[in-house]
Amino acid sequence: MGLETPEGYTALGEATVAAFLAGLPAVAKRLGGGPKDWTVGEVGDGNLNLVFLVDGPKGGVCVKQSLPYVRLVGEGWPMPLERAFFERSCLAEHGRHVGRLIPEVYHYDPLRFAIVMEKLSPHIIMRRGMIEAVRYPSFADHISTYMARALFFTSDLALPAPEKKQKVKLFCDNTELCRITEDLIFTDPYRVHERNRWTSPQLDGIAADIRADCELKLAVSTLKLKFLTRAEALLHGDLHTGSVMVTEDDSRVIDPEFAFFGPMGFDIGAVIGNLLLNYFAQDGHATSDRPRDDYQDWVLETVDEVWSLFQGKFLALWADHPDGDAYPADLFADAEGAEALAAAKHVFMRRLFADALGFGAAKMIRRILGLAHNIDLEWIEDPDRRAVCETRALKLARDLMVNTSDYRTIADVTAAARETRAKG
Amino acid sequence: MGLETPEGYTALGEATVAAFLAGLPAVAKRLGGGPKDWTVGEVGDGNLNLVFLVDGPKGGVCVKQSLPYVRLVGEGWPMPLERAFFERSCLAEHGRHVGRLIPEVYHYDPLRFAIVMEKLSPHIIMRRGMIEAVRYPSFADHISTYMARALFFTSDLALPAPEKKQKVKLFCDNTELCRITEDLIFTDPYRVHERNRWTSPQLDGIAADIRADCELKLAVSTLKLKFLTRAEALLHGDLHTGSVMVTEDDSRVIDPEFAFFGPMGFDIGAVIGNLLLNYFAQDGHATSDRPRDDYQDWVLETVDEVWSLFQGKFLALWADHPDGDAYPADLFADAEGAEALAAAKHVFMRRLFADALGFGAAKMIRRILGLAHNIDLEWIEDPDRRAVCETRALKLARDLMVNTSDYRTIADVTAAARETRAKG
Repeated sequence: MGLETPEGYTALGEATVAAFLAGLPAVAKRLGGGPKDWTVGEVGDGNLNLVFLVDGPKGGVCVKQSLPYVRLVGEGWPMPLERAFFERSCLAEHGRHVGRLIPEVYHYDPLRFAIVMEKLSPHIIMRRGMIEAVRYPSFADHISTYMARALFFTSDLALPAPEKKQKVKLFCDNTELCRITEDLIFTDPYRVHERNRWTSPQLDGIAADIRADCELKLAVSTLKLKFLTRAEALLHGDLHTGSVMVTEDDSRVIDPEFAFFGPMGFDIGAVIGNLLLNYFAQDGHATSDRPRDDYQDWVLETVDEVWSLFQGKFLALWADHPDGDAYPADLFADAEGAEALAAAKHVFMRRLFADALGFGAAKMIRRILGLAHNIDLEWIEDPDRRAVCETRALKLARDLMVNTSDYRTIADVTAAARETRAKG
Repeated sequence: MGLETPEGYTALGEATVAAFLAGLPAVAKRLGGGPKDWTVGEVGDGNLNLVFLVDGPKGGVCVKQSLPYVRLVGEGWPMPLERAFFERSCLAEHGRHVGRLIPEVYHYDPLRFAIVMEKLSPHIIMRRGMIEAVRYPSFADHISTYMARALFFTSDLALPAPEKKQKVKLFCDNTELCRITEDLIFTDPYRVHERNRWTSPQLDGIAADIRADCELKLAVSTLKLKFLTRAEALLHGDLHTGSVMVTEDDSRVIDPEFAFFGPMGFDIGAVIGNLLLNYFAQDGHATSDRPRDDYQDWVLETVDEVWSLFQGKFLALWADHPDGDAYPADLFADAEGAEALAAAKHVFMRRLFADALGFGAAKMIRRILGLAHNIDLEWIEDPDRRAVCETRALKLARDLMVNTSDYRTIADVTAAARETRAKG
């Protein structure tokens, strides 16, 4: 390995994982038998890390280890091992609030920067299921609970300020992962950069239009400033449909290595933006004997439900747990105060909705014009067909980001998605 | 001393300061002679700390030491010694940007939590001069430079994100001092609390009105949420006219122990709010043979200049040093981009102006209805006369906070101050 790593760190391999786990009695017991009875498979299909699934006679575990570089790119792009620490810290913090909506962590190894956690089975990555037009009828309920609880309970609405400041401090060091977001989402797609790629030549024109679109560049820069300055809650930081593992009736949020205190709308927008990308991508996967229109309806219903359920749950938590230093309960204790506070909550949610749309739009654009694309679109083999889907997604995203205030409800968003698709 | 303190800490006294300084060769050399030649006086008139002025044959120094409690209240209100560390850290950070607008630090003692720094002479606390109607013709120029440079160079407009995050992290532990602000400025004056006091019975009615004023309580709670979440720049955190030492042509900002990363408007508002308090207080100090109308004109001219000069200087810094991660320069490099960015800067400054007015208003209200008052008003002996001044200040502050968007320019603010005074 060319990059320097701290003493005690070695990248695990399929041959060495079992020995590592054998040294952890509670984990070994969970697997059953001994190392010779365990099968190991490396399955990391993400962009950054090693991921091993280990099965024994009694059960299985998942081992996720940081590499000192970005796996997608190689040693030329070093990346701090400590991201495993932040992932584990976020799993611990969110775990207190969302229970079984994330995997259980069995062990964290600070020398190997490795997390040993629950192996999710028979779960698959939600994005893969959605490409196959599989419906997840409980997803909107699950993800809205996850977001409402994870965001509310790490915000100033629920926490006393000193406690929140300590949590903010812990995640201040996750700078390199934040920088990926700052560069790849908020900056690169809007300028000429060697890391960018898109369906070419079909999108050359629209990519150039976006690089010249000053209104859009101002809007995304304002979002970036929010991302840089607003420590509202502990975010997952990368909450797309590739970070959710699902069965028909279970959903688990994984991979919060981008965790940090930022604007709540960033996580909500990530979910909505990725659902909208899938909506547009379906037209590239539909065949005459297997049309996708009904599924697209379901995707948009899910977009609607994600926001509507989130809003209801977040407000219910705020009503039940007004324990933070923001909007002190005793200032609004009487009937008139309660009414005033209700109005303020409405304003708060409208602002959060607008943030979510802006951030969601930024997520859509980066997946089409930036470095990291998603397979909803990438797996459309015919570039002409893919470009049609991508162009529609870019058009909607541009409007969501620049004319955010025109979208007053989530129904306005899904209607605009339908209209954008219908127009070609 | 009843409160536990770390090993090595003893509160200094007039008798022990010289021995402490004798152990610091560079400081001893600055004073000249030996400890026997040095005179020591304790002059701390603030609310929290010990302050010694030490003079020797060659020169003088100032020693500021944390006490483990709030001096104004006593041991019943413990307060972390570490505030000296944050003051020194802020002096170091701001010092890189504002040069001689703050005192030079000669030494920091981490065991004694003591800062040895430049003795400012013949400077006096600006608030005391203003009560005597002394004009400081350079103040607006100095304080606007201080704020523009301290805020700009610690913001995402000037800093790469990883560097800024490290600075944010450093100040995350200054929680107890932030809590004083959170409670005493944004919360207590708006509820019944034993710490509150006001000119009674004259202000009993308006204090009750304010506690029942839901619009105002929402507005101050929204400001509090900004204070809790928006890490825009390294703030002084307590930038009133009692934190500025002046001569006719020099101004030095002292006492940044409340320093932390927060919303820029908080510091700007502190300056404006305290000038406005002085403006209204003058009517309590005027006599028939020494009217204060001309001085009040000067105070309002100064309010106007503080904002106008700040705005110009901040925008000039932004034009000259667009080195931060926010609003990346290469996105706005061409003529159209430059025009768009100029528009965005205008929006940014309008938002900052509104924040400053809201925070300034909060500062005004807390000084009349909360725990810590200021001598501009306190030194008006006749309570009826004082109450008239205070009532006017509260009326303007209430309007500034609730109807912030009605104030489009700083001239609107000074006009409203004049009108509020004229109406009685």
